[in-house]
Parts: sequence; structure tokens; C-alpha cells
Amino acid sequence: MTIGVERLSLNQATVKPLGLADAVALCARHDIPAIGLWRDRVAEIGLAGAAAAVRRAGLHVSSLCRGGFFTRAGWEDPSGREAMLADNRAAMREAAELGADALVLVCGGLVPGSRDLALARRMVADAIGELVPEARRLGVRLGVEALHPMFCADRCVIASLGEAVDLACLFPAGVVGVVVDTYHVWWDARLAEEIARAAGRIVSYQVCDWVLPLPADTLLGRGHVGDGVIDFGPISAAVTAAGYDGYVEVEIFNADVWAAPADQTARTVRERFAAILGAA
Amino acid sequence: MTIGVERLSLNQATVKPLGLADAVALCARHDIPAIGLWRDRVAEIGLAGAAAAVRRAGLHVSSLCRGGFFTRAGWEDPSGREAMLADNRAAMREAAELGADALVLVCGGLVPGSRDLALARRMVADAIGELVPEARRLGVRLGVEALHPMFCADRCVIASLGEAVDLACLFPAGVVGVVVDTYHVWWDARLAEEIARAAGRIVSYQVCDWVLPLPADTLLGRGHVGDGVIDFGPISAAVTAAGYDGYVEVEIFNADVWAAPADQTARTVRERFAAILGAA
Repeated sequence: MTIGVERLSLNQATVKPLGLADAVALCARHDIPAIGLWRDRVAEIGLAGAAAAVRRAGLHVSSLCRGGFFTRAGWEDPSGREAMLADNRAAMREAAELGADALVLVCGGLVPGSRDLALARRMVADAIGELVPEARRLGVRLGVEALHPMFCADRCVIASLGEAVDLACLFPAGVVGVVVDTYHVWWDARLAEEIARAAGRIVSYQVCDWVLPLPADTLLGRGHVGDGVIDFGPISAAVTAAGYDGYVEVEIFNADVWAAPADQTARTVRERFAAILGAA
Repeated sequence: MTIGVERLSLNQATVKPLGLADAVALCARHDIPAIGLWRDRVAEIGLAGAAAAVRRAGLHVSSLCRGGFFTRAGWEDPSGREAMLADNRAAMREAAELGADALVLVCGGLVPGSRDLALARRMVADAIGELVPEARRLGVRLGVEALHPMFCADRCVIASLGEAVDLACLFPAGVVGVVVDTYHVWWDARLAEEIARAAGRIVSYQVCDWVLPLPADTLLGRGHVGDGVIDFGPISAAVTAAGYDGYVEVEIFNADVWAAPADQTARTVRERFAAILGAA
């Protein structure tokens, strides 16, 4: 099962130093047909300008990063919670305007001052429930992303794909799905069965590699596809078998990659994608 | 459900600078009834001397760390594999001589040069299978420890408690069990059910806390019980409900803890244990 470069998307975090216009131009220059956008970069040039830029370039927007952080305000802080929901509604409107295939949700860690994982998980589910009607109205699909368990405390209490699928299944499949990111889930012995269970719910497939040793900032330990230990073949096959035929985003957080010239990064992304995801 | 300090064990890694004799004396001085030993420290004074030292002090040996690393030698390296098995047999004989409740197994990461997680997991199961007859003859219980998924590539492909239980269940319960270490498994949404499924198979319960931010060396991110985000109550209750009534080891890898005076560390260990695991 192969994934051709016609399905490659560059998540703009991979070329973090570039503004949106430069990232769009980079994709055009390297014949990359889709891009994953970040809200802060969209905001810099304004939503209308960003939407026009990608449209002019003929680029598809495979995802908008990101909504979520549903647990930052506790129950005893209703105004903080309202602000969080308002920000997520704004993110949904942006995703709709940009024509993004999915709004990626990073759900948030433990509630500040609390050790209660179950509480945090309930708050995540409750917040998504509050957003679903507007997401449906806007035609935006929300993508619950399981983050690696090393981020469970501070970024995302949804720490395995199985949990993300359980959560998504509480809501209509057309509105809430899951994001499969190899960096976060590659280690999971249950991965194949959880991907199968996600059939019809996968709204984004993101790839990058797990490179050792981990850097001091574990957020930045991702590598180009092929530089690490992840076996992309079986994961890609499972995602394909589960019916996902959308764009495949390369999203790399890595200080060395960010320091490299963007054109070199784009070339490497494309070559590795073709060599490894495109291999039979 | 409370766990009293009469069940406290100090894993000697918590006072890493101390040799075995000093660690034993520390436990005696602080009325800590059991100790978890490490093979390198045992070797320093010799097995017979180590066994005599703990016996003289009236200390129980709650675990010996560690056997495992079953994947370091690939299938194409039979002599490397034989050496690995021989080392594990030596570890089992040491555990028997010391009267340790369990030999802790850190199973090993990916096979060098391979990205095949399934191969590594099969090699782990195969190696344990080869060790079981001698473990049974010696009366040693092997404890499969699930390590945190961030160590999956390089230290342990058994990355969740559920996997450890699945693996242990391939063998007689009297010979192969699991180690529950809060640091490695606290994030898991399936933890309660996997602990329940481990009933009769829990051979060691180890505690320490998850402290943010993670240090540059993620091996050393553990903290004193109470210094981090782990909710010990529900985990301890589940372990107790699953029938575990043995010693509870405090095992902390942390450069600051190692730099502190050992008596201060022992006092903190005891106080936190009483305050948090002993709380109703």
C-alpha cells in the first residue's frame, strides 16, 4: 500500500520561521499540494488574507492547528471556561473559512492544581460536546489528537489513540474524528486495532519520526521521516485500510530542522515522503 | 485503603551514591523494613556478603533490579543471545540467594538496527519462556515491568501495563508477574482495569512521582511522592484490591535527590509515604 506525493501536505510548523505567505510560496515552489496551517500565523496576516493566499496558490488546507486546551480553566472559573470555548469557536470559524479538512484539537493536561485525570478527561468530553452543534453547522470536522503519554500532565490527557477513538465515538462521525500522528502513537501495542476501530473517523494523518536521544525539550524530538525508529509501512497500511484517503501531513518540531534553509527542508520532506510512504 | 510504613521498602537507586552496606545501614537507622537491591551494588561486595548484610540487618529484600534486555542481541547473534540468557540466569540465582520477592525485568527496546516492534516483543516473550523453568526451580518470581512509552525505542518495548499483563499471562502466575510502577503507568486511561486484570500477578509495586518539567535526561525526572502530579490514592487502592499485600518500593531517579544527604532522603521518603500512601 503506497501513499503518493500527490497526497503530501506540509504542516507549517515544519518550517516554523516562515510566515504564512512564505510557507505557501514554499509549497508552490516544491509542488506540495496541501498545507497544514497554524492559527497564530493565520492571525498575522488576517483570516481573509490567509484564505486568499492559499486559494490563489491552489493549495488545499489539510488542517488548522489548533483548538483545544479544554482543561486550562477549572469548573470554578466560568469566565475562563467561557473564554476557552469562545476561542475554540473562533478556531472553528477560521477552519471553515480556510476550508480545512480538520481542526486539530490538543485537548489539554491536568486541570491546574488538580491530580484528577478522570476529571480532566470529563472536562474534555464536555467541552467537545458544547462545540459540536456549531462545528456541525459550520461543516468543520474536529480531530481529537492523542498526544504521547509524556505530555499527559501538561498538554493532553488523551494519551493513546484508543482513548481518542472512545472520545470521538461519543459524537457524530461527521463532526468528531481523530488525528493519527505517528510520533505520538507508534509505541502502542494496540495501535493496529485502534486504527481499525477509527475507520470513518480519521480526519488527519500526520507523520514524523521518533529520533533518539530525546532532546532537552521533548517537544522538539521529532525528526524527518526515516531519521528515526518508526516503521511507517504498517501504520500507513492500517490508516489506509481504515479508509483514510486524505492528505498526509509532515509535521516536524525540531530546532535543527528549523535552522535549516526552508527549501532544503521542503526537498527533504518530499524525498523522504516519496521514498518511505511511497514505497510498496 | 491505606498502606502503612511497615510495608515501605527503599529501592537503593533512590540513594544511588551509597554502596550496599551503607544503604542497608540507612534503612536500619530509619526503621525501613525492606530494601530493593541493584545487581551492580550486590556485585561490589559479593553475593554472599550482600545476602549476609541484609540478613544481619533483618531487612527483607523486596526486589532485585534487574534482569531483561532481551532484545540487545538479534537472532543472527546466537552467542550474544546466549550471553544475555546466561546473565539473566545469574540474576535469577542472585535473586534466589537474596530471598528477593521478585526479579525485576526491563525487557529491552528495539533490536539494534531494526524498526520492528513486533519482532522485539516476540523476542521478549521467547526469552522469558526460556527462563521460566529455571525461575520455577529456583522459586524466583520474574516481574515484567512496563516502562513509560518514552522509553519504548531504547529500553523497553513493553510500554503499557496491559501489555505486561498479556505477556505475564503466557506463563504460570507463580513464576511470571508484573511490576506496577506509578511513574511509568499513571497516565493510562486503562490503568484501573489492567491492574484488576493483574490480580495474583503483581509482584512489585513501586512508587515515585511525575514532576514537571521533565529534565534533559528523562530517566531522571522522578520525584518524591507528593512532589508531582500523580494521584497515588486510586492506584494504590486498585493494587490493593488486586490482592497485592507486599512491600511498596520508593524508587526515585533524580539528580537532586542523589545530591541530598542520604539521611534527609530517607526521612523524606518515610514521611511522604506515611502522609500520602498511609492516608485514608
